[in-house]
Amino acid sequence: MNIYPSCVPCLLNRILYETNLIDPSKALEVLNEVCRIISKYDLKESCSAVVATEVHDATYDILGTRDPYKAIKDRCNQTAVSLLPKAQEVINNSKDRFKAAVLCSIIGNVLDFGISSSPESPEKLTEQFDTLLAEGLNKDETDKVREYLEKGGKVLYFADNCGEIVFDKLLCQEIKKFDVHLTFVVRGQPILTDATLEDAQEFEIGDVTDKILTTGCYAVGVNFEDMGEDLKKALENVDLIISKGMGNYETFSETDYRPIAYLLRTKCEPVAKDMNLPMNISAVKVYE
Amino acid sequence: MNIYPSCVPCLLNRILYETNLIDPSKALEVLNEVCRIISKYDLKESCSAVVATEVHDATYDILGTRDPYKAIKDRCNQTAVSLLPKAQEVINNSKDRFKAAVLCSIIGNVLDFGISSSPESPEKLTEQFDTLLAEGLNKDETDKVREYLEKGGKVLYFADNCGEIVFDKLLCQEIKKFDVHLTFVVRGQPILTDATLEDAQEFEIGDVTDKILTTGCYAVGVNFEDMGEDLKKALENVDLIISKGMGNYETFSETDYRPIAYLLRTKCEPVAKDMNLPMNISAVKVYE
Repeated sequence: MNIYPSCVPCLLNRILYETNLIDPSKALEVLNEVCRIISKYDLKESCSAVVATEVHDATYDILGTRDPYKAIKDRCNQTAVSLLPKAQEVINNSKDRFKAAVLCSIIGNVLDFGISSSPESPEKLTEQFDTLLAEGLNKDETDKVREYLEKGGKVLYFADNCGEIVFDKLLCQEIKKFDVHLTFVVRGQPILTDATLEDAQEFEIGDVTDKILTTGCYAVGVNFEDMGEDLKKALENVDLIISKGMGNYETFSETDYRPIAYLLRTKCEPVAKDMNLPMNISAVKVYE
Repeated sequence: MNIYPSCVPCLLNRILYETNLIDPSKALEVLNEVCRIISKYDLKESCSAVVATEVHDATYDILGTRDPYKAIKDRCNQTAVSLLPKAQEVINNSKDRFKAAVLCSIIGNVLDFGISSSPESPEKLTEQFDTLLAEGLNKDETDKVREYLEKGGKVLYFADNCGEIVFDKLLCQEIKKFDVHLTFVVRGQPILTDATLEDAQEFEIGDVTDKILTTGCYAVGVNFEDMGEDLKKALENVDLIISKGMGNYETFSETDYRPIAYLLRTKCEPVAKDMNLPMNISAVKVYE
């Protein structure tokens, strides 16, 4: 996705958010460097996630930490774990277990911090869960996803945030009921609130999937020029990509990988507009 | 006022606001240039208004207009004129005409566009006027201002926005009831929604003051290094400065000019924090 004008102040606000988590006194220094980085790009020709990646990388360096969101990520995971029995019950009681699991995993995508539509706290999801369930999928191409899964083959599942990954596990369980080879992909290094190998291992994602890979790089979404060899090969020979969240959309939308099913909350206007979807909905949209 | 971290994304949003008024297709080009300019400053040592001035100047150049807010300024003036009889009645019916006029002129300071606390439209002030009147002055050092006026001497009144200037005229009428020489100062060139000589003339500010001057420069607030000679002399020999709005505060707060009475709505957190005041109040605060 090419960067939208409103991405720039949003990115700066996110940078301030993460700076305030670690050391508010460094905010002006961070902003100086971030503006310098942004000004290097020709924004008319720049992918939002590529700019964001370099900007977060520089910010982490100035803050002297490679995981400023660590504490929030832990809280996201804890909140999701506390909601797990409820989500499992929703799926068990549903006539369409697969669709119910898709919805739960997208509700998990609400756990995203540092943007204007973020919940007040990770714990807030506990209150919002029922409302989001009742809302359901406002863009629903789940049946298309099901058709691909019924064909079997190789599926790559790109995870997004911590907390969310707990619900992803439930969806992976349902996906594995189809005759597919399922590979779960997490970030190669901590970035924002995104799930890493550590989270995949903590929640034993390996028990319900065939393989776990990482992107092999530090990037919002996926840096296709810097990804690991294993992932590169997997992407050359894939039958369906399931992509969670906005960061993955921002990078996959620049590529020709198809078919790809985006499962996400439309949490910002640029992504919603780019996908031709309303803001603040739970959406499943397939590009073939 | 040294720039605060949150000033930077706020400034970018304001730049996008004015770009969208004129030509949304230029937004990314504008952002590229604005980030380049900001990155040149050592933000830890930079006045918010100085950075904003250079940024707006460059934006106006790219947009190919020296007055992107012209249409909004006209609507602010029209709205204020429609509220003038009401404001005059409030003053006439008040036991303390001076304080009532101070309050009306600060209510006019709400007319400020492109920041997050802006009203939806200039016309919205018509609905808000009574509420703001009822709220009154939440920081009220009007009596200190009155004491200075009672001493007589030379008073410089620095105006801020269009629309607001209509209420400033009512306050000037009350100020002139003291034995003072009153000079009214507007911006030297159009910037943001600020009042210029054209507005001062349209509303015949000259009829109720002794003199009208301009800052003689293009600047948010006042650029003391680039101001006109007349204003420079006037500032060397002044008994009281009355400064309306945040832009004037951002620049005067960097100087030793005293006594100075700031009359404003605290419309953003950095200014409110810098003045040790709550957000979104009408305030009269005197620095001696």
